[in-house]
Amino acid sequence: MTIKRGKFITVEGGEGAGKSSNLAFIRDLLEQSGIEVVFTREPGGTALGEDIRDLLLGHKHTGMASDTELMLMFAARAEHLARLILPALNQGKWVLCDRFTDASYAYQGGGRGIDMERIRHLETWVQQGIAPDLTLLLDLPVQTGLDRAGLRSEPDRFEVEQNAFFERVRATYLEIAERDQHRVRIIDAGVSLSQVQKQIERAITEFIQVQGNLND
Amino acid sequence: MTIKRGKFITVEGGEGAGKSSNLAFIRDLLEQSGIEVVFTREPGGTALGEDIRDLLLGHKHTGMASDTELMLMFAARAEHLARLILPALNQGKWVLCDRFTDASYAYQGGGRGIDMERIRHLETWVQQGIAPDLTLLLDLPVQTGLDRAGLRSEPDRFEVEQNAFFERVRATYLEIAERDQHRVRIIDAGVSLSQVQKQIERAITEFIQVQGNLND
Ligand SMILES: Nc1ncnc2c1ncn2[C@@H]1O[C@H](COP(=O)(O)OP(=O)(O)O)[C@@H](O)[C@H]1O
Ligand SMILES: Nc1ncnc2c1ncn2[C@@H]1O[C@H](COP(=O)(O)OP(=O)(O)O)[C@@H](O)[C@H]1O
Ligand SMILES: [Mg+2]
Ligand SMILES: [Mg+2]
Repeated sequence: MTIKRGKFITVEGGEGAGKSSNLAFIRDLLEQSGIEVVFTREPGGTALGEDIRDLLLGHKHTGMASDTELMLMFAARAEHLARLILPALNQGKWVLCDRFTDASYAYQGGGRGIDMERIRHLETWVQQGIAPDLTLLLDLPVQTGLDRAGLRSEPDRFEVEQNAFFERVRATYLEIAERDQHRVRIIDAGVSLSQVQKQIERAITEFIQVQGNLND
Repeated sequence: MTIKRGKFITVEGGEGAGKSSNLAFIRDLLEQSGIEVVFTREPGGTALGEDIRDLLLGHKHTGMASDTELMLMFAARAEHLARLILPALNQGKWVLCDRFTDASYAYQGGGRGIDMERIRHLETWVQQGIAPDLTLLLDLPVQTGLDRAGLRSEPDRFEVEQNAFFERVRATYLEIAERDQHRVRIIDAGVSLSQVQKQIERAITEFIQVQGNLND
C-alpha cells in the first residue's frame, strides 16, 4: 500500500495580521475532517532552525547584509524541509506552516530590495520542486497590523522597520496572490477575529472538498 | 586618486595540515613587503559568522542535513564578503583567509556528496565574481593530518568523520588544484614546519613579484 502524500498549507501576511492567532483554529478545522496535522513555523520549525531564527530576529546582528539574511532564511528552510516537512508529508500528514517562501519574496525581496530572480534561484535550489498546495494570505492595512503587533511584545529585528518597508511587504504579498491565484487565497484580516475565521473556514472547507473530489 | 584593490589570498587543506599555524608567518611575509594585511577565517570572520561557525562545528546539531550545512557555510560567507573582505580589498588592503569556498567543494561536495554544480550555483549567487587571487593548498596524507589535529583539541563536528570522508576531501582539493593551476599552489605540508615555510615563502614571494611587475 502506498501512502497518499499529505498537503502543505502555509499562512502568510504582515506583522499582526493574525497568523499565529489563527493557526490552532485551522488545525482544529483540519482535524475535524480526520486529517492528521503537523504545525510549525518559519524561520524555525527545527532545533537548528530555531537557533537560526534567534540570529535573524534578535538584535545582536542588526547590521547583517541582506544577502546573509536571505541565505539564513533558506538555510533554516532547507533543514525544515529535510527534517520535518518532507518526512511528515511522506507519512501522509498535512503540514500547516506559519510563513514560508512567500515571506522571503515579501520581506527580503519587497522589503529589502533583493532581486526577485535571485530569490527564485535559492527557492529552486533549496525546495527542488516542493511548494505549498494552499496559502492563506491574511491581508490588512499596515498600520492596523502594526498597532495590533505593538500590543503583543517587544519588537523584533523586522518589526523596528519603517512604514514604507511594510508597505512594500504588503504590496509584494498581493502581487504574489495576483500571480498565483490558484494557490493563494486572500483573507481580509482587518476585521474582527470571528469574521476572519469565517473566511478561513470557507477557504479550508473548499480546499478539503476539492482534495476529496480529486481522490474519487 | 583611485586606490588599487588589494589581493585576496586563501589557505586551504585538511585537518591538521598547518593552516592556522602558518597564517601569522604568511602575514609577516606580506607585511615585510609593505603590504597591509587583514587576516580572517571561515566559517566565521564576522560576529554573525562566528555564531554560525558555532552552529556548524558544535555538536548540538549533529543530524543537520547536508544542504543546510552548505547553506550555512554560504550564509556566513555572504556576511564575511559584505562586511569584511570586500571593504578591506576596496581600501587596498590584502585579505588572508583560513579556508574559503574551495573548502565547501572539498567538504560538502567531496565529503558529503553534494553535487558540485549545485555548489557552483551558490558560489555564483553569493560571490558575484569575487574569488581568491592566490590559494595555498597545504596537502598531506590524511592520517598525518589527523594525528596532528588529535594532539590539538577536542574534535569538532567534522573531525569526528571517518577516514574515507577525509580521503574524499583531500582528493577534491587536489582536483581543484589540478583544474585551477594558475590560482592554486600546492604546498607539501607533510614535512617539518621549517620545510613547509620555505615552500610558502617561495610561493608568496613569487606572487608579490608578479603583482609588482603587473603594476609597472
Ligand atoms: N482579527 C483580529 N482583530 C483584532 N486583533 C487581532 C485579530 N487577530 C489577531 N489579533 C491580535 O493581534 C495581535 C497579533 O496577532 P498575531 O496572531 O500574533 O499576528 P501575526 O502572527 O500575524 O504577527 C495579537 O495580540 C492578536 O491577539
Ligand atoms: N609541519 C608540521 N609538522 C608537525 N606538526 C605541525 C606542522 N604544522 C602544524 N603542526 C601542528 O599540527 C597541529 C595542527 O596544525 P593547525 O595549524 O592547527 O592545522 P589546521 O589549521 O590546518 O587544521 C598543531 O598542533 C600544529 O602545531
Ligand atoms: Mg506570528
Ligand atoms: Mg585551523
